[in-house]
Amino acid sequence: MDTVITKKKFNFFAGPAILPASVLKQATAATEDFAGMGLSILEISHRSKQFAAVMDESASLAKELLGLDDNFEVLFLTGGASSQFYMAPMNLLPSTGTACYVDTGTWSAKAIKEASMFGNVKVLASTKESNYTSIPKNYEIPSDATYLHLTSNNTVFGTQHESFPETNVPIVCDMSSDIFSRPIDVNKFGLIYAGAQKNMGPAGVTLVIVRKDMLNKVDRAIPTMLDYNTHIKKGSAFNTPPAFPIYVSMLTMRWVKENGGVAAMAAKNEEKAQLLYNEIDANPFFKGTTSVEDRSKMNVTFAMNDPKLEEVFFEACTAADCVGVKGHRSVGGFRASIYNAMPKEGVQTLVDVMKDFANKNG
Amino acid sequence: MDTVITKKKFNFFAGPAILPASVLKQATAATEDFAGMGLSILEISHRSKQFAAVMDESASLAKELLGLDDNFEVLFLTGGASSQFYMAPMNLLPSTGTACYVDTGTWSAKAIKEASMFGNVKVLASTKESNYTSIPKNYEIPSDATYLHLTSNNTVFGTQHESFPETNVPIVCDMSSDIFSRPIDVNKFGLIYAGAQKNMGPAGVTLVIVRKDMLNKVDRAIPTMLDYNTHIKKGSAFNTPPAFPIYVSMLTMRWVKENGGVAAMAAKNEEKAQLLYNEIDANPFFKGTTSVEDRSKMNVTFAMNDPKLEEVFFEACTAADCVGVKGHRSVGGFRASIYNAMPKEGVQTLVDVMKDFANKNG
Repeated sequence: MDTVITKKKFNFFAGPAILPASVLKQATAATEDFAGMGLSILEISHRSKQFAAVMDESASLAKELLGLDDNFEVLFLTGGASSQFYMAPMNLLPSTGTACYVDTGTWSAKAIKEASMFGNVKVLASTKESNYTSIPKNYEIPSDATYLHLTSNNTVFGTQHESFPETNVPIVCDMSSDIFSRPIDVNKFGLIYAGAQKNMGPAGVTLVIVRKDMLNKVDRAIPTMLDYNTHIKKGSAFNTPPAFPIYVSMLTMRWVKENGGVAAMAAKNEEKAQLLYNEIDANPFFKGTTSVEDRSKMNVTFAMNDPKLEEVFFEACTAADCVGVKGHRSVGGFRASIYNAMPKEGVQTLVDVMKDFANKNG
Repeated sequence: MDTVITKKKFNFFAGPAILPASVLKQATAATEDFAGMGLSILEISHRSKQFAAVMDESASLAKELLGLDDNFEVLFLTGGASSQFYMAPMNLLPSTGTACYVDTGTWSAKAIKEASMFGNVKVLASTKESNYTSIPKNYEIPSDATYLHLTSNNTVFGTQHESFPETNVPIVCDMSSDIFSRPIDVNKFGLIYAGAQKNMGPAGVTLVIVRKDMLNKVDRAIPTMLDYNTHIKKGSAFNTPPAFPIYVSMLTMRWVKENGGVAAMAAKNEEKAQLLYNEIDANPFFKGTTSVEDRSKMNVTFAMNDPKLEEVFFEACTAADCVGVKGHRSVGGFRASIYNAMPKEGVQTLVDVMKDFANKNG
């Protein structure tokens, strides 16, 4: 394992995904020695005062970055968004209640499947027939729905909710791939969940933000570990939490804060996305794969007008140290994930590869 | 965070717990650059070929170390043993079936509580009345039980099953704190589970070993993420697995293999435990807190004959760089966790502190 780092690659993986260089440096230091304890962060008690401080700061940072008041509880769980697909309805949806879902892709569809085990599920709108290339709009939301479930950003297809519906129904939202990427009006949301491994940290921890008035409306038996109340009462330490993934997420949230918070992230993300979409639209070899108005600022999906050239272009990306731009295996084409931690320089490098490709092959 | 490592401490924490120094060194290297990719292991796709190799090797090593044949599946999940308390009965126990439990402490009691949600639960024996200072023996096991649940090692109280009952009923066993510490007759077991953060790796991953013939005997609806079959079909990658905790667990399993496997671990653990128990029994200031025949080789619990001296002794431990010897908050006294990775030198240092304490205060 005596590898030598020659040059840092530009990491366009969709997730687990790029983390800020300064975060990785601190994470590396903590695996050697954490907080001057003479021990690695990987081998200390989660009940030590040094680690308790990490748990506290993580929750505080999430609250501060998103502007959450005391109506919200912040939890750090495991099992990914895939576990929230069933935990959300299990905890929030009475068996006689109705949960409304909008189907915007792979992850929405999975959430819908799990929810139907717990109550009535109504799919208000879906763009499945057009292969999820856009976000449904102008659907009616029944005012008596228990909640409205949305997937804010669709990693696979490269679409994103530019805004959220105006409704009095609390929104339950899978924000796995765009959490902390922009300001949100938190008062619209009853539950927000996000697997960390896109914009927040490494794989292994799931952020869950729940508005307290959403809870205690179901009467089904819930295993202790699956009850949000358990983790609220115990500050996400009912059992041993995923300590290191939480620590790295805390470092990443600190980085977001130090770099101007979510508003500054949004401005930078907007700029990076425009740079890349402009090239996709201008370059005769490439085309976008989604509706222009629903384009994701996190996962930029595109294809080539001549699919036979895709392999050659992918090799050009690799040669320019742009890693992970292959489209999701269920979609094909290309996907450049340009989360918070991706520097503009990385996007510019990819754009240069595209320009260069056009010049050479034009 | 510019901390300087002066001297390595001896880490007696009960969990998250000591990891081999060579494992920590490799884990640190991988957070900088993994497999020569020019990227940290924290930011690479779990579907990259480099990480797929980690998943494969992890499962292979677990099988090899425990001598598992193809009747067993090895899974790497999340949620800790606390999640297996409900997942095991949810997946294995028909609502008309009967699961038998032996109550040997805090964790057994929690497992019993969760199981009763899914079928009939029979507690065959308990040592609760004697504050769990011993392991029940000579209880009868109904031959028609779906399974017999045991907690092989009781971290809180410091007791351990020296052997497992002779029975045709498959044993479901929480081995969180002694997995890979000794050879076991795997054919007795229908399910083995273990939170990694004691003898296997850092917090954030849970090892689950299931014998295939235990599955598909229940007809209840199970959320996709909670169904063992889901993770068997997808090689523990139905959703994003906790990549780094799995990687460090793989490194630890490699270390066990390179150091002679579980038989060699058992010999070393026996030697370390004897060294410490001998001092507890010989030193007039200390006493063991469990039945001699049920003493754990992983978590050595002891107390002082004069409780007023405990604070002074604890300070002497700290001064000698022995960290984490405080007893569990529900029990008090002392607990020295001496898992696989604890060198004999660490135990000798603690024994020397005890001897020295007796000399000074005797």
